[in-house]
Amino acid sequence: MNKYAVVLFNLGGPDSLEAIKPFLFNLFSDRDIFKIPVGQKIFAKIMSVFRAPSVKEKYKRIGGKSPINDWTRLQQSMLQQELQKLVPGIEVYAAMRYWHPTIRDIADKVTEKAFDKVVLLPLYPHYSITTTGSSFNEWKRVYKGEAEKLTYVYDYFDNQRYINALNERIDETILRFPENVRDDIQLLFSAHGLPESIAKQGDPYPKQIDKTVACVMKARNFSHGYHLCFQSKVGPAKWLKPSIDEMIRGLAEKRKKQLLVIPISFVSDHIETLFELDIEYRMVADEANIENYMVMKGLNNSKTFVAALKELAVQALQNQSVIESQPVKKNG
Amino acid sequence: MNKYAVVLFNLGGPDSLEAIKPFLFNLFSDRDIFKIPVGQKIFAKIMSVFRAPSVKEKYKRIGGKSPINDWTRLQQSMLQQELQKLVPGIEVYAAMRYWHPTIRDIADKVTEKAFDKVVLLPLYPHYSITTTGSSFNEWKRVYKGEAEKLTYVYDYFDNQRYINALNERIDETILRFPENVRDDIQLLFSAHGLPESIAKQGDPYPKQIDKTVACVMKARNFSHGYHLCFQSKVGPAKWLKPSIDEMIRGLAEKRKKQLLVIPISFVSDHIETLFELDIEYRMVADEANIENYMVMKGLNNSKTFVAALKELAVQALQNQSVIESQPVKKNG
Repeated sequence: MNKYAVVLFNLGGPDSLEAIKPFLFNLFSDRDIFKIPVGQKIFAKIMSVFRAPSVKEKYKRIGGKSPINDWTRLQQSMLQQELQKLVPGIEVYAAMRYWHPTIRDIADKVTEKAFDKVVLLPLYPHYSITTTGSSFNEWKRVYKGEAEKLTYVYDYFDNQRYINALNERIDETILRFPENVRDDIQLLFSAHGLPESIAKQGDPYPKQIDKTVACVMKARNFSHGYHLCFQSKVGPAKWLKPSIDEMIRGLAEKRKKQLLVIPISFVSDHIETLFELDIEYRMVADEANIENYMVMKGLNNSKTFVAALKELAVQALQNQSVIESQPVKKNG
Repeated sequence: MNKYAVVLFNLGGPDSLEAIKPFLFNLFSDRDIFKIPVGQKIFAKIMSVFRAPSVKEKYKRIGGKSPINDWTRLQQSMLQQELQKLVPGIEVYAAMRYWHPTIRDIADKVTEKAFDKVVLLPLYPHYSITTTGSSFNEWKRVYKGEAEKLTYVYDYFDNQRYINALNERIDETILRFPENVRDDIQLLFSAHGLPESIAKQGDPYPKQIDKTVACVMKARNFSHGYHLCFQSKVGPAKWLKPSIDEMIRGLAEKRKKQLLVIPISFVSDHIETLFELDIEYRMVADEANIENYMVMKGLNNSKTFVAALKELAVQALQNQSVIESQPVKKNG
């Protein structure tokens, strides 16, 4: 029997307060995001020491660690369970760009196990050099197996099941608003920002984000007013606009009092949703007299999202003529 | 090498909207909770058909399924990872009283694998016949292996690591309140209720809940005002008092405006925390003009809670002279 694998890619996050500094060091060492001509390691060292204390205060307020590893592990195990119904014995791994298990750990395992086909499937629906690109580059640097066994999934920002998963979460969050204001809700899509300079180099991320928002709104027949903004800007450079705080204040000025915030570029909760959106920008909303400010939870354990991942993995294997050419027996 | 296992017990919950009816059927079939003299199956059938539609509306508002299976699966995998550092090869299972994998499924697996020692460890810190008792009874009905291999952990309501895990979550939730009101927060411990008749038969549950609250408050040096109430009453019989809605209204009358609700008898989020506390009773709090109403999230992926489970498992194995008599090699 042929042996297949799927590798999921995600950022990873610190799994304890002590892990914050080494995590930040790994992040600032990434030359696909921070390209320092000389002294990358020194830069990473300084930045991680410098930023760790303030980042630590944030993690203390959301459970002392990032939940991203836990959600990714759950998505991995849900996907494996679903895929094994169709492709017995298939194994699913999760590889973390900045934490454990690292991309190198998983690449070594995949090489060692000599799979016949391997699908590389990022947990980023939108392609950016800073996320999927960086992960694929790292994979290429450390993978020692045969390249022809690999299929890269670059993006799936318009996959219908992924769109459905988002709409299920939106619908469920709408029901948290008092009944008499539900028609007045403004849907505020918030995507992780990107330096303008990277967007200008042709990074497809901003356009793919636009398309996801369009797909979601079309699928829900434009049920509510909607807006797109960007979060998580760091540093002095220009980033994609509008920023979420401008957007919240602007909507408040237009007497919009009901805000449903939709994290659009993340597939599970982490510090950007739990702290930045749900604690930090809630204060902005409170000050601006927003009446109801609800942050949609991440796709996390959504079965519909896992069904999207399953569909993408199966499509990738079919393109490799794995499933077509070899009818799979349920008890095989 | 000797082979060891730990079996975690939990309720389980419907993993899709379609699963609600069969889940309720299993629940109403439990004679440790609903003792129908004749016609238990007919009672369970009628009740599950009758209640499914309204229960479905609630699940639609929290993600279309119960997260309890996912959290339990994660706790199982985190505990296994931690235990294997100490006891190589040890396996951890999760058995669900009313859903899959059932207690029978896991009992069969444990019998088949012929472990030398098995620890039965409920995910209920407080003993009640309706939870731990019911699970252990079911285990005894279906387990076909040797009884002397088993160690039952009955409760751990005052385990210090469990208490610490609760306090970490409380501290983190306090930081969600605006800074200037944090001293005014009232800690509202909410435990799943129990019919008075069961309490009067000597069920240790109410006293153990009292003790947990006392341990938590002592460990935090009685930082805030605190109160204990009970939730989730169903049917016309008398249940433990005070009920949470009475308590919320009573506190509002006493001009207490800052409420932090602590689910005390659950170790992960499910419908009682996500719907009942966070949606249903939030409305009661809104009507009573509570200013800030925050529901603490479940222990879920808390590493400190997993450390408590690890300690309990290790203690149980030591009582069985497993670890004492046989020093474990890390690479053994």
